[in-house]
Amino acid sequence: MPTAAANIGVVGLAVMGSNLARNLASREGNTVAIFNRSYEKTQGVLDAHPEAGFIPAATYQEFADALQKPRTAIIMVKAGAGTDAVIDELVKVFEPGDIIVDGGNAYFPDTIRREKAVRATGINFVGAGISGGEEGALTGPSIMPGGSDESWVTLGPILRSIAAIAEGEPCVTHVGHDGAGHFVKMVHNGIEYADMQLIAEAYDLIRRGTGKNPAEIAEIFAEWNKGELESYLIEITAEVLRQVDASTGAPLVDVILDQAGAKGTGAWTVQTALSLGVPVSGIAEATFARSLSSHPEQRVVAGALPGPGEEFTVPADQVDAFIEDVRLALYASKIVAYSQGFDEIRAGAAEYGWNIELGAISKIWRGGCIIRAQFLNRIADAYAETPDLPVLMAASYFAEAIGRAQAAWRRVVVAAAQAGIPAPAFSSSLSYYDGIRADRLPAALVQGQRDFFGAHTYKRIDKPGTFHTQWSGDRTEIEAVDTH
Amino acid sequence: MPTAAANIGVVGLAVMGSNLARNLASREGNTVAIFNRSYEKTQGVLDAHPEAGFIPAATYQEFADALQKPRTAIIMVKAGAGTDAVIDELVKVFEPGDIIVDGGNAYFPDTIRREKAVRATGINFVGAGISGGEEGALTGPSIMPGGSDESWVTLGPILRSIAAIAEGEPCVTHVGHDGAGHFVKMVHNGIEYADMQLIAEAYDLIRRGTGKNPAEIAEIFAEWNKGELESYLIEITAEVLRQVDASTGAPLVDVILDQAGAKGTGAWTVQTALSLGVPVSGIAEATFARSLSSHPEQRVVAGALPGPGEEFTVPADQVDAFIEDVRLALYASKIVAYSQGFDEIRAGAAEYGWNIELGAISKIWRGGCIIRAQFLNRIADAYAETPDLPVLMAASYFAEAIGRAQAAWRRVVVAAAQAGIPAPAFSSSLSYYDGIRADRLPAALVQGQRDFFGAHTYKRIDKPGTFHTQWSGDRTEIEAVDTH
Repeated sequence: MPTAAANIGVVGLAVMGSNLARNLASREGNTVAIFNRSYEKTQGVLDAHPEAGFIPAATYQEFADALQKPRTAIIMVKAGAGTDAVIDELVKVFEPGDIIVDGGNAYFPDTIRREKAVRATGINFVGAGISGGEEGALTGPSIMPGGSDESWVTLGPILRSIAAIAEGEPCVTHVGHDGAGHFVKMVHNGIEYADMQLIAEAYDLIRRGTGKNPAEIAEIFAEWNKGELESYLIEITAEVLRQVDASTGAPLVDVILDQAGAKGTGAWTVQTALSLGVPVSGIAEATFARSLSSHPEQRVVAGALPGPGEEFTVPADQVDAFIEDVRLALYASKIVAYSQGFDEIRAGAAEYGWNIELGAISKIWRGGCIIRAQFLNRIADAYAETPDLPVLMAASYFAEAIGRAQAAWRRVVVAAAQAGIPAPAFSSSLSYYDGIRADRLPAALVQGQRDFFGAHTYKRIDKPGTFHTQWSGDRTEIEAVDTH
Repeated sequence: MPTAAANIGVVGLAVMGSNLARNLASREGNTVAIFNRSYEKTQGVLDAHPEAGFIPAATYQEFADALQKPRTAIIMVKAGAGTDAVIDELVKVFEPGDIIVDGGNAYFPDTIRREKAVRATGINFVGAGISGGEEGALTGPSIMPGGSDESWVTLGPILRSIAAIAEGEPCVTHVGHDGAGHFVKMVHNGIEYADMQLIAEAYDLIRRGTGKNPAEIAEIFAEWNKGELESYLIEITAEVLRQVDASTGAPLVDVILDQAGAKGTGAWTVQTALSLGVPVSGIAEATFARSLSSHPEQRVVAGALPGPGEEFTVPADQVDAFIEDVRLALYASKIVAYSQGFDEIRAGAAEYGWNIELGAISKIWRGGCIIRAQFLNRIADAYAETPDLPVLMAASYFAEAIGRAQAAWRRVVVAAAQAGIPAPAFSSSLSYYDGIRADRLPAALVQGQRDFFGAHTYKRIDKPGTFHTQWSGDRTEIEAVDTH
């Protein structure tokens, strides 16, 4: 039996788990116990990384014995039933005060359920979102842990030791209790969907409008990456567009099948927002754009539907201006997507009683994760200035940025509609912008219709109370009890 | 104890329940037993409607004894725990072969669960969507029953006797097994959200573009109701816009608070579509438009955000043409909304193993329900012509209609973007249309990005298999096992 020499353990040694274990082992002060369901994999990781000084365990009991108290273990298995199975085993060999961390991509209601069940045993359970993919796990991810304050005392220093560093600060913070970490990770992924779709629309418009080839467009993105759009996703877009396919000599992007996959976190983000009553239309359009692309049986029959007829060609002397318009449209739409995402976090925190500091979230996304960007500093500034900002987009910096971008943004949405080029995220973002700033919305008509067919009642602008017009009677108005 | 004189019973005598009971009693051959948790309400219904010949029951046992076998009872209580409570009581007093119908607005997974539990007792359980509001319940609703084939033998004639009649056919069909009826009712409501939002956008654009007042716009809708847009919602829009508020003398629509409520079925429709991978962007935008409207604390700060600056005024000599453009945009967007809704039904049927005849669904929506419309005959025709149509919009009639409408549709979306008027459903529908008919989508770039940061792999257009570019290595391509 090994002595309790490790201060942290990792369960699950697929690529994400072994990379995270290596990352932990590489930081001063950490000794890492490792466990995998099949010992063969444990042995493989041990052999491949002798420098890590891993303490291998063949059984859960050995794993528990290898850990200093309070025992702290990070589960890195595929989210789902496997997570529950590992938790069950750890609970058997851990003791009150120990800490079980789920570093998988769990759906936050599962995390809330697990935290409650594990807490009943006196053991701490922490759902932690980890973003950055395999490389981030190894070199420094962005980490979004939930769980109790007690667990954070032990866990904080360990996670800070392995997180990405952005402007001198580790990209980890105690997000909030129970499911808060996985909730925030979910919204992170939803924003990522929107960000990627916006980039795809920008690329498509430039390509179809100007005839530039992918390599040329790669240079445009590389250039954009030097300015206010600077971000990991813009950077890798340039890399992808530059890539030449070895077997055909064509740009790789032209040989990739145009059907985008999804692993469900975008859908979760939108489903949760619908339950919370938060309009995340940009994320929804991005998620739907992927599902639309993945129905070839529909696209093949719909391919015969007519377009606007004329070819879309930006005149040569207007190409640079058009590209700048697209850049501004992308920036403005991105502001909307992040504003919607932070709105969902704000609403989720209120619903679930989490004390989430929105500015701290924007800071831990500055490094390690997929949506890392310059831009997040501006979000941090906005929340520092006004912590209870009702809608991020209205912060002075973003209001000014959108004011500067909006004419271009409108021109791009107009060009897409005229040219028959789908720009669902660009145009949805603009509609949201024009909706939220409207003095008066036709929602009043919708309420009138609802009252007509379902007696759902309405409120008035000029006095308190709830009212109903007796539409099928004499059409007088009565004060009503709002039961609908 | 009453003799078993009733062929149908109703449990729950709030307005929907008592109206449905009255409707049943008014049809030849029906004798209706009624029951309510508090007998006071039963007595009230009995006293108010002596002509109905109701057989009142004071207990569940009396209710069961009053019913001929197989006993058939329709539960009309608010969807939720109350439904389960009533089912539990009925199961105690009913026998194998009897039929319990839930006519409430249940979420279809609950119906699947209840059907399974009740079926285990040998009793039939039927979840039936009923649309048409209080008035429809009384005079003839559109009814969407699920449940077993066995139950339909008894239930069919009873439901046919009370359903709305459209072109000689009763608006009821056996939709499919277990939760199929409530699923279809849910999508009906989702389409209703889209339809209402599209009408609201049309109204808003005409009002803000032409300065016409609500009464004048009412006349436009009344005129539209004579043509291909003919529908209940267009009809009542004219009624609502015509209504003058007695206390101020202003158009009622101008004194109604512009915050639209929702009871959740729109959100369910979108949440389900996200799980099924079906893009219902029009329904999503409509649902989000309501939630956006209902956040005054955000709208008040966002109200300061800048718009396009210039006033939007359609020149006097172009007003008629603009209104016709809006009409065509509404029609084209409506085609998209219904196409997306039927797509969701098709996908839901495949997922849950329901044998749903899409043409039959469009027919039972022609009368009684909120989205009843001329238009549904065209949908029935399309499915009669091609029962396995992959996407409704591509049917020849609709393809032709959109072809005719699309230039106007594009002009309207352009005008809204330029004018700063939110038209989320109009523009989302157009983006969907341009997306689904695109030869090539930038989804290929999204797949490239996903492969770059998460090794999610991609497929190629020129050969089968799944591939990964070793982005952080030498950037050669390898064939990969698609585990993502």
